[in-house]
Amino acid sequence: MGAASQDVAGTVRALFFDTFGTVVDWRAGVAREVADFLRRHGLTGDPERFADEWRARYQPAMEVVRSGKRPFTRLDVIHRENLDVVLAAWGLNPEDFDPAERDTLNHAWHRLDPWPDSVAGLRRLRGRFFIAPLSNGNIALLANMAKRAGLPWDAILGAEVVRAYKPQPSAYRDTAEVLGLRPDECMMVAAHNDDLHAARQVGLRTGFVLRPTEHGPAQTTDLAAEEPWDVVARDFNELADALGC
Amino acid sequence: MGAASQDVAGTVRALFFDTFGTVVDWRAGVAREVADFLRRHGLTGDPERFADEWRARYQPAMEVVRSGKRPFTRLDVIHRENLDVVLAAWGLNPEDFDPAERDTLNHAWHRLDPWPDSVAGLRRLRGRFFIAPLSNGNIALLANMAKRAGLPWDAILGAEVVRAYKPQPSAYRDTAEVLGLRPDECMMVAAHNDDLHAARQVGLRTGFVLRPTEHGPAQTTDLAAEEPWDVVARDFNELADALGC
Repeated sequence: MGAASQDVAGTVRALFFDTFGTVVDWRAGVAREVADFLRRHGLTGDPERFADEWRARYQPAMEVVRSGKRPFTRLDVIHRENLDVVLAAWGLNPEDFDPAERDTLNHAWHRLDPWPDSVAGLRRLRGRFFIAPLSNGNIALLANMAKRAGLPWDAILGAEVVRAYKPQPSAYRDTAEVLGLRPDECMMVAAHNDDLHAARQVGLRTGFVLRPTEHGPAQTTDLAAEEPWDVVARDFNELADALGC
Repeated sequence: MGAASQDVAGTVRALFFDTFGTVVDWRAGVAREVADFLRRHGLTGDPERFADEWRARYQPAMEVVRSGKRPFTRLDVIHRENLDVVLAAWGLNPEDFDPAERDTLNHAWHRLDPWPDSVAGLRRLRGRFFIAPLSNGNIALLANMAKRAGLPWDAILGAEVVRAYKPQPSAYRDTAEVLGLRPDECMMVAAHNDDLHAARQVGLRTGFVLRPTEHGPAQTTDLAAEEPWDVVARDFNELADALGC
C-alpha cells in the first residue's frame, strides 16, 4: 500500500458505501424481475430498458425532496410512484395490474445481487473498519437487501436515518455525526465521481471503485477517477488491499 | 411449541429487542469501567452503586424529551450529562477530570457484555426472523456494542431512527413502519413488563424474557410476566425454541 493510503487507513474509522451500482448490480436485478412480470402478462419489451427508464426517474424525483418542495419521502414510495409512471410510458395502464403485484415488483430493489467481489471485500474491510451503507435507499430496502445477500454491515445508515438525500451535504455530515466521528474519520466509497465530490466537499475521505458495467456494456460514465481520490480500486478486494485489510 | 406460539410465529416477521438488561448486562459492564476509573484516581466506593445511580437518572432525563420540554437528544448526550451529575452527587467535581476521560467512561455503555445466551439465541432467531434492537440507546452506542459483542442484528433501529423514546407509542409504531410491516407482524422482546405493555397497546406481539439479576442479586422487579404475553421464556434459547427456530 502506498504512503497516501497508509495515512488514510490510519485516520479513517468508518467506511460508508454507496449501494446501487457500487455494492449491487441494480440493473440486472431489476431487469430479472421485470422480465418475469412482462412474461407473466404476455408482454414484450426489453427488461433492461425498463430498468434503465425506472432508474432514470430516480434523481428527478429525489430532487423534488432535496429542493424542499416535498417533505422527506422514503425511496420505496418514490420507486413505487415511478413504477406506475414507467408502466404508463410503456403504454400500459398501471391500474390494470393488481396493486399487490406492483408492490412486489417494486421490491425488486430489495432483492439486488451484489457484484462478485462485494461480500468478500466487505468481510475483509469489516475486520478493520466500521462499515455501513450511505445510500439513498430506505432502511427496509437496504436491510432486506443485506439479509438476502449476506452483506455484513455494522449498521444500516443512509438517507432515511438523516432525512436527507445525497448529494446534499447533510447526508454525509450527519451520518458521520450519528457515529460520533469527524468527517475525516469517514471514507465515502462509491463508483460515482459526483458522490465522492460531494462527500469530499464536507471533509470525508474518498474511495473510488470502478464498476464499468453498472449501466450495461455500453457504459460511458464513471469509467475513471475524475479527481485524485484518496483511494482508487478496481473492486472491493483491491480496496481492502489498499487499506491494509 | 404450544398452539399460541405457533400462531404467533406464523404471523411475526420481525423481532425487536430491548437492549439494556434484555440483551446485555449493563450493570456489570458499567461497574467494571467505573471500578477502573475509581482505582485510577485513588477513590473508594461501590462501582455497582455508581452504575445504579447513573442508570437511575436515565428515565427522568428521557422524560424531559418525551414531554416535549427538550428536542430529541441522543442517549450518549444524556448519559454524559448524567455522568457529571453522579460524580457531583458523589462529592466529586466533574471538572477535576479530563473531559476526554469522562467521554471514555461514558462510552462504557457502548462496551456492555451480552448475557451468556444472547448471541447464540439471536443467531438462531435471525434464521427465521428479521431481528433488530428497539432500544432507547442511540445508533452509535448500539452499533458499537453489536460490533464488539458480535450481536448479529439485521439493522440498528431504535429511538434515534424514529426520534422517540420508549414507551412513547410512536417509538414502536414507527419502527414497524420503517420496515414496512404491520404492528402485529412485529414482536417486542423485553425483560421489562412496562416495555411490553406499551408495545402491546399499539398492536405489537410480545415476548417476555426473564433477566432476574439485571439489577443485581436483590432484584425485586420483573421477576415474572405480569400480563399474558404471547411468549414467556427463561432466556433467548428458550425464546428460539418457542418460536420454532
